Amino acid sequence: MSEARQRRAFALLGSTGSVGVSTLALVERFPERFRAVALAAGRNTAALAEQIRRHDPELVSVADEASARDLRARVPEFTGRILAGSEGPLAVATHPEAELVLSALVGALGLVPTLAAVRAGKHVALANKEVLVVAGELVTRAARECGVDLLPVDSEHNAIFQALRGQARDEVKRIVLTASGGPFLARSAAELATVTVAEALNHPTWKMGPKITIDSSTLMNKGLEVIEARWLFDVDADRIDVVIHPQSIVHSMVEYVDGSVLAQMAVPDMTIPIGYALAYPSRLPLDHLRPLDLPAAGTLTFVAPDRQRFPCLDLAYRALRAGGTMPAVLNAANEIAVERFLAEDLAYRDIPTLVAAVMDAHAPAPASDLDVLLAADAWARDAARSGSGRAERAAAR
Amino acid sequence: MSEARQRRAFALLGSTGSVGVSTLALVERFPERFRAVALAAGRNTAALAEQIRRHDPELVSVADEASARDLRARVPEFTGRILAGSEGPLAVATHPEAELVLSALVGALGLVPTLAAVRAGKHVALANKEVLVVAGELVTRAARECGVDLLPVDSEHNAIFQALRGQARDEVKRIVLTASGGPFLARSAAELATVTVAEALNHPTWKMGPKITIDSSTLMNKGLEVIEARWLFDVDADRIDVVIHPQSIVHSMVEYVDGSVLAQMAVPDMTIPIGYALAYPSRLPLDHLRPLDLPAAGTLTFVAPDRQRFPCLDLAYRALRAGGTMPAVLNAANEIAVERFLAEDLAYRDIPTLVAAVMDAHAPAPASDLDVLLAADAWARDAARSGSGRAERAAAR
Repeated sequence: MSEARQRRAFALLGSTGSVGVSTLALVERFPERFRAVALAAGRNTAALAEQIRRHDPELVSVADEASARDLRARVPEFTGRILAGSEGPLAVATHPEAELVLSALVGALGLVPTLAAVRAGKHVALANKEVLVVAGELVTRAARECGVDLLPVDSEHNAIFQALRGQARDEVKRIVLTASGGPFLARSAAELATVTVAEALNHPTWKMGPKITIDSSTLMNKGLEVIEARWLFDVDADRIDVVIHPQSIVHSMVEYVDGSVLAQMAVPDMTIPIGYALAYPSRLPLDHLRPLDLPAAGTLTFVAPDRQRFPCLDLAYRALRAGGTMPAVLNAANEIAVERFLAEDLAYRDIPTLVAAVMDAHAPAPASDLDVLLAADAWARDAARSGSGRAERAAAR
Repeated sequence: MSEARQRRAFALLGSTGSVGVSTLALVERFPERFRAVALAAGRNTAALAEQIRRHDPELVSVADEASARDLRARVPEFTGRILAGSEGPLAVATHPEAELVLSALVGALGLVPTLAAVRAGKHVALANKEVLVVAGELVTRAARECGVDLLPVDSEHNAIFQALRGQARDEVKRIVLTASGGPFLARSAAELATVTVAEALNHPTWKMGPKITIDSSTLMNKGLEVIEARWLFDVDADRIDVVIHPQSIVHSMVEYVDGSVLAQMAVPDMTIPIGYALAYPSRLPLDHLRPLDLPAAGTLTFVAPDRQRFPCLDLAYRALRAGGTMPAVLNAANEIAVERFLAEDLAYRDIPTLVAAVMDAHAPAPASDLDVLLAADAWARDAARSGSGRAERAAAR
């Protein structure tokens, strides 16, 4: 077998986002191990052009025809295919040479191509949490049927995946997701009412995009992760807990029936879970990263989440227990609520109020196929756009 | 297969000690899982008689003929064999029905029967750290040759064993043993000079026997565990670190090449590692134990050990690097030094001084067979008995 044949060929959905960029940086560090054969991006053609020059993929996709023309002008020497529109991510996700697809498109956009990748028999490294929040039952069933691995890239789920490795699943008692708690951990309910966009975007430990940063501050991000964990690890809601751990060093834990708790710790750097998923079942020697130095860190603290001050967490448990289309509705309503908060069209404390109101107005249907889920998603977005957080809140009481 | 046949038959070396008592308590909780077929004790015939009544073993051993007569009088109804003297533990360790031997005799006494158990093809659950400190190379080689598992019962090594499960050994970067730090963590060197026996016996987190409690306070216990880890996990001294963690919740950790650190945490209760070793590769549902509650614990702290104030740690690394018979000499000299401290015949701060002086006077030989190791052990005991800590210290400079 030639050296080139031994490289793992993979497709990357969301190549110009934060996870995509980190993934390609890792590929450049291990050119003998990985090869990016297909890249899906949106409108950031400058970044994509540079990725094409460095990685020479066989296929790339962009959001629309205008972006495609722009990209073509930037890389006239590129001989691969350039696709535009919604067919692009599908072609990337099912590229015949890709053995693995890293799914890092933001939001519900990643759902259709990720499901297509699973059905095409690709292992999927999941950095897009909406895929499982919206369609966890559907996607995990498809993965089982197609015999593919779902490899979590979120640091929390990756930690759990590591802590489950080699262990008997029927000996798992409980999964404990850690949460940094975001920037408002110490704020009173009254203080939370006055949070500004700038304050909410200032996350203490992780550098991330605006949507996930806001979700971290409301704990909705952790709520979505609870739903994701339920599907990834086949553990029901009652056996998934959340603990606030502001230092973001213990990335999550698994408690076993004998009282042993296995935890994965590391410096907060997405390179580690990305590398774990890409190289699975091997580990990459990431010697360029600062190692975890516990004496230098000194203190790790743990507190129970305050479910009154951060009601988004319980909304997620409520959606998970309601089942069917409800998690898709929670997710869609939250996306719009955060969008409206970032546009200063909704107060910070009205994010959970608006989401709850949309959920109250929804009668969940079974999550039997993608169309039903996407229809629920679309309905919830409309409802959240037209709902005025405050009025909805009053109505919900 | 009948239910009785499915029970795991095991032999217990050191049935009346702390680990032995916890082990038999666990057997009483899971009578359908385990059966103690042979028990080796010393002179505590009252406790052994009670164990015989509860567990009905086929063979027991005691220290001497007087103890045997005493025991016979206490359990006239017992139809099994009672052996006395050094043949007893050997017969217990090689009992034909035992599939596993739990080795929990205190000190170097456990070495000969444990090696006999390995050579008889028994899996060995090791609670006696001297076995590997004195004869690590010999015992681990025998275990490999005989195809038996060495299952660590020490909470630290058990934690590492759990954190290595299902992982690739060549991806291990470093092993990190945690140490409670003992009661004198915050004492200055001058204050350490005045430590009394009563102070040294007051361990903050674990309830243990006097020898190991003193060893915890000097960090010699951790040094011995470094040596043990080297043999159990085939990792050289340079890749074994120690970190002080006063809460004794993180029981130890393994760092992998990708920067991931897997840790096992639990409430400090020996039932967990004992159960893990007994039931391996299964885990027992230990629902009677208080679960680990991290928010209630609140804070976990980590500090680097102070190698100046606690020189025993470096003595152990020195012995491990010198190799051959030197770890046996370290261990034997330390046993005598602690014995003399407990008898108020040696000052606390002279424990490391005396051990260092005995090591200085020893030219290590290869640890090729048991007789060489036992001779080095005997020589070191004599040297430590006759050495006056202070004079030796002056001579060592």
